[in-house]
Amino acid sequence: MSTSAFARYSAITVPTQFVEANGIRFAYRRWGKEGKLPLAFNQHFTGNLDNWDPAVLDGLAEEREVIIFNNAGIASSTGEVPTTFAGMAKNATAFIAALGLKQVDLLGFSIGGMVAQQIVIDRPDLIRRLILVGTAPRNLDAGGGQGYLTPEAQSIFGAAYDPPENLWLKVMFTDSELGQAAGREFLKRYLSRTEDRDAPISEKVAPAQLAALAQWGDHPGERFVYLRDIQKRTLVVNGVHDVIVYTVNSLYLVQNLPNAKLILYPDANHGSWYQYNEDFVLEVNRFLDNA
Amino acid sequence: MSTSAFARYSAITVPTQFVEANGIRFAYRRWGKEGKLPLAFNQHFTGNLDNWDPAVLDGLAEEREVIIFNNAGIASSTGEVPTTFAGMAKNATAFIAALGLKQVDLLGFSIGGMVAQQIVIDRPDLIRRLILVGTAPRNLDAGGGQGYLTPEAQSIFGAAYDPPENLWLKVMFTDSELGQAAGREFLKRYLSRTEDRDAPISEKVAPAQLAALAQWGDHPGERFVYLRDIQKRTLVVNGVHDVIVYTVNSLYLVQNLPNAKLILYPDANHGSWYQYNEDFVLEVNRFLDNA
Repeated sequence: MSTSAFARYSAITVPTQFVEANGIRFAYRRWGKEGKLPLAFNQHFTGNLDNWDPAVLDGLAEEREVIIFNNAGIASSTGEVPTTFAGMAKNATAFIAALGLKQVDLLGFSIGGMVAQQIVIDRPDLIRRLILVGTAPRNLDAGGGQGYLTPEAQSIFGAAYDPPENLWLKVMFTDSELGQAAGREFLKRYLSRTEDRDAPISEKVAPAQLAALAQWGDHPGERFVYLRDIQKRTLVVNGVHDVIVYTVNSLYLVQNLPNAKLILYPDANHGSWYQYNEDFVLEVNRFLDNA
Repeated sequence: MSTSAFARYSAITVPTQFVEANGIRFAYRRWGKEGKLPLAFNQHFTGNLDNWDPAVLDGLAEEREVIIFNNAGIASSTGEVPTTFAGMAKNATAFIAALGLKQVDLLGFSIGGMVAQQIVIDRPDLIRRLILVGTAPRNLDAGGGQGYLTPEAQSIFGAAYDPPENLWLKVMFTDSELGQAAGREFLKRYLSRTEDRDAPISEKVAPAQLAALAQWGDHPGERFVYLRDIQKRTLVVNGVHDVIVYTVNSLYLVQNLPNAKLILYPDANHGSWYQYNEDFVLEVNRFLDNA
């Protein structure tokens, strides 16, 4: 174990820190074993610092530093949410630079995976390896003719939940007994940080993120050809039944990225890596540590 | 290590044995560490006992017994090759029973994966877990309008090669530098057994296997619904660019099997598991050993 103070924290206890760049005050949390490249996380639609699964974060933090942050305009970070993933990518790279890091491994979940693709395209020097979870390329397949939001996502995000966090049972897990049981375990972990929880997001977040997603879905040009320029070793992960970002998009990613491995988990939806957090941590450690 | 004589053999040294069942004299090889359920292998189109990759077999044999065999009418086994996978499945279960085994783990590669699906459907009692590599469900997607053979497969199997085993460079590996280098390494391993090699296949094998594949491709009824009855834990593996059995068929398998995990390897074709044999062995050991 490192002797650093931050190595001893967990997802539940690590204090929120702040750093300024691009005129934005970014909220972030950073902890875990020092010595390897840190792994930086790009968050999903409407998520803040608390929405990551502590089981995944602390599992990974046993082997490397993990860095979670709110991009501009999200929750406890200042600034405006851009209406493009390119804008979000620019803010994210400013944040990473502000930490004094020359290179990181990068993870993106859902729309965070779209931001992560954009970061690698813009700043290949900054990224060593890439992990894309529950996400999609430009011109994604979202069914329903709309081009960027699946019918299931529209229905699930459009409904009311009591308590509100039960939304994530539907977004992240299948309706099976196994899936919903995994979801309830995740919700316990999600609520287990009781001190210094993050601020809620404002009503400006969702419209801006949806605008970015719409542009991503409508991207002109030959489908998926831009992926050939992402030369980084990439791990793509999803559930076999992702209804928020259809699973077939993970196949498009690995069939068009030059060097990408795919793992799909059984009876799992958008939050497959929360449901199979032990297996995911093991796979990620192998992926990041192997030569 | 077991004290059994056969535990000490390798894919290169293990003698071919014979057992009779259903009026057929089956040729097989069996070796590896005793104590767990044996893993039985169902071979690809026109393959005999020598076509398996020794690196995969011996990697797996460190943890469990492996059993490879020629189904009826193939190479050193007697009998006729059935023109349906149902017929081949019946012969395979007779072979397993003739070894005195009440249950095995089952692996099928390419058309061997179709036979393996049929075995599990017919005799769920005989199988614990299932591994499907480079294969497809009934009503597979083979492109080109023909329904069961991809245009690439027709072209690759229709060409002449000098030496003949160079066929497998095209069938099993991508055309990339990495893929062809992996292919040449595989060919060395394939040729490394110099004593007691298997007999060649007769000219009757390919037409019967193609007839079975045609029937599998044309299966009537609701697409993929039969997969819901395969309740076994299943691991599906392929390359991201399988041109012999299109990779999308692996997605169909895991999206319709009740409990199946998918792994797709980068820059890999039909023989992905030969190219990534170390990773494959590790994944299979985890899959077969975990509760």
